[in-house]
Amino acid sequence: MEKLLSLFEEYLLNNLPNSKTFHPHFEDALSDMLKAGGKRFRPMLLLSVVKSNKSLLIPNSLPIALGLEFLHTYSLVHDDLPAMDNADLRRGFQTLHKKYDEVTAILVGDALNTHAFNLLANASLSNDIKIELVKCLSSNGGIDGMIIGQAIDCFFENQKLELNQLEFLHIHKTAKLIAASLKMGAIICEYDLNTQEKLYNFGIDLGLLFQIQDDIIDETCTSQEAGKTTQNDTSKNSFVNLLGLTGAIKSADELALKCANILNTFDENLKLSLEELLLKYINRHK
Amino acid sequence: MEKLLSLFEEYLLNNLPNSKTFHPHFEDALSDMLKAGGKRFRPMLLLSVVKSNKSLLIPNSLPIALGLEFLHTYSLVHDDLPAMDNADLRRGFQTLHKKYDEVTAILVGDALNTHAFNLLANASLSNDIKIELVKCLSSNGGIDGMIIGQAIDCFFENQKLELNQLEFLHIHKTAKLIAASLKMGAIICEYDLNTQEKLYNFGIDLGLLFQIQDDIIDETCTSQEAGKTTQNDTSKNSFVNLLGLTGAIKSADELALKCANILNTFDENLKLSLEELLLKYINRHK
Repeated sequence: MEKLLSLFEEYLLNNLPNSKTFHPHFEDALSDMLKAGGKRFRPMLLLSVVKSNKSLLIPNSLPIALGLEFLHTYSLVHDDLPAMDNADLRRGFQTLHKKYDEVTAILVGDALNTHAFNLLANASLSNDIKIELVKCLSSNGGIDGMIIGQAIDCFFENQKLELNQLEFLHIHKTAKLIAASLKMGAIICEYDLNTQEKLYNFGIDLGLLFQIQDDIIDETCTSQEAGKTTQNDTSKNSFVNLLGLTGAIKSADELALKCANILNTFDENLKLSLEELLLKYINRHK
Repeated sequence: MEKLLSLFEEYLLNNLPNSKTFHPHFEDALSDMLKAGGKRFRPMLLLSVVKSNKSLLIPNSLPIALGLEFLHTYSLVHDDLPAMDNADLRRGFQTLHKKYDEVTAILVGDALNTHAFNLLANASLSNDIKIELVKCLSSNGGIDGMIIGQAIDCFFENQKLELNQLEFLHIHKTAKLIAASLKMGAIICEYDLNTQEKLYNFGIDLGLLFQIQDDIIDETCTSQEAGKTTQNDTSKNSFVNLLGLTGAIKSADELALKCANILNTFDENLKLSLEELLLKYINRHK
């Protein structure tokens, strides 16, 4: 696992977006947030699936893993904009609109979004596989996925959502890209459609579980314990506010059990590979 | 030509982004700018190339033409944002951040960008062709194309550029997507690489010619003649300000002659098809 992560980090550093021009800072700005760290959860999900079944394809899968990280990073850069979260810091560094300006942050996000598909299309994999990867990333990272989740999150910031609406929000905003990361690994392994779908649905449950756990941590931990600001969310749409703390814990337990049961239906290598990854990332997925 | 445009408009109206949820306006916002009109120059370039050589593939090419229009439209939505042009109107309608809010405009742009690649990947064309299309659009619409052009345009708004820098700006901001539209038509026709490259380079010259002509119109026409606000650009980076009016006209004439000469080297069908289109669009390309 650590080796796989080092391999990815090395690949990322050797394949940062390249745009040498007379613009004084645009090339640096393109790379800043990619170099700033982060857990690389989505790339690692994809690589873990590939490792379990076609480890020889790991080098060929690195640009796909990087494409996932580009798309995720663009979403963070845009979420941080003044019109959305208006965040000053991200991954311990100044956000791009603070360090440079808003134009730079908007355009860096746009560039990383588009370039994710360039990375997919140029990977050393068959065109049949690559087209399925483009379909999967563009559908789960786009209108029917991450974007509509983010739009709902922003619009209903100060309005109470029903439980099914809150689930819809988080499934779209977060879980679908996590699910897509697993499915894209399965596409590279040329798993049958049934297995691809099983991995995808597992990712949806996993993404939702992470979100509920996050809400519980916000409610129950001190900032020091959680490693981030907590208990500042009493009015926001959260599973804890909607279900109560006991209800949220019960929901999380049920989902965790469901995920464990699904994991047990995967073949041994895939199960072990994902278990190893999830044990490392659980509660630290963002 | 008119028939091809009607075909495209009809296809667009039947394939607007679909996102029915409990968000009160996001689905409408996704479609507003696509429905607002525009010349559809990029889709028509692609379809004109296809028509000249493989007219049977026109129906299969419509989603690719629509992908080009999605990408172009997203760039307009983001260019209009308060941090960039801060425009109130686009194509005669309120811009999205005016009609709704900035979050909506940012996310609609993001969604159209990502969904362009979904349209490409799901078209009824071979996967080999579709991967080349994804490469071409993501490279010319991204970091090495439109985005770096826009970044330079914004950053140097109040600083004088050299001629080669101004050309770099417009080649990247505008000409590369025009060139890509032609090349993507050539990819669908399975023209050899040499012809693809010739069409692409023709598109670069054409895009540059359009820009110089625009600058000349800004200098010489009344707003009524030009159909838009003119003569408000004396301090901006323009070919007229850099070369003088006579120099800019000379440059435009030379480029127009070069374009005409290149057109004459294309096979008869392609030449006629592009001539018909360009005669209609010349000076009205935006």
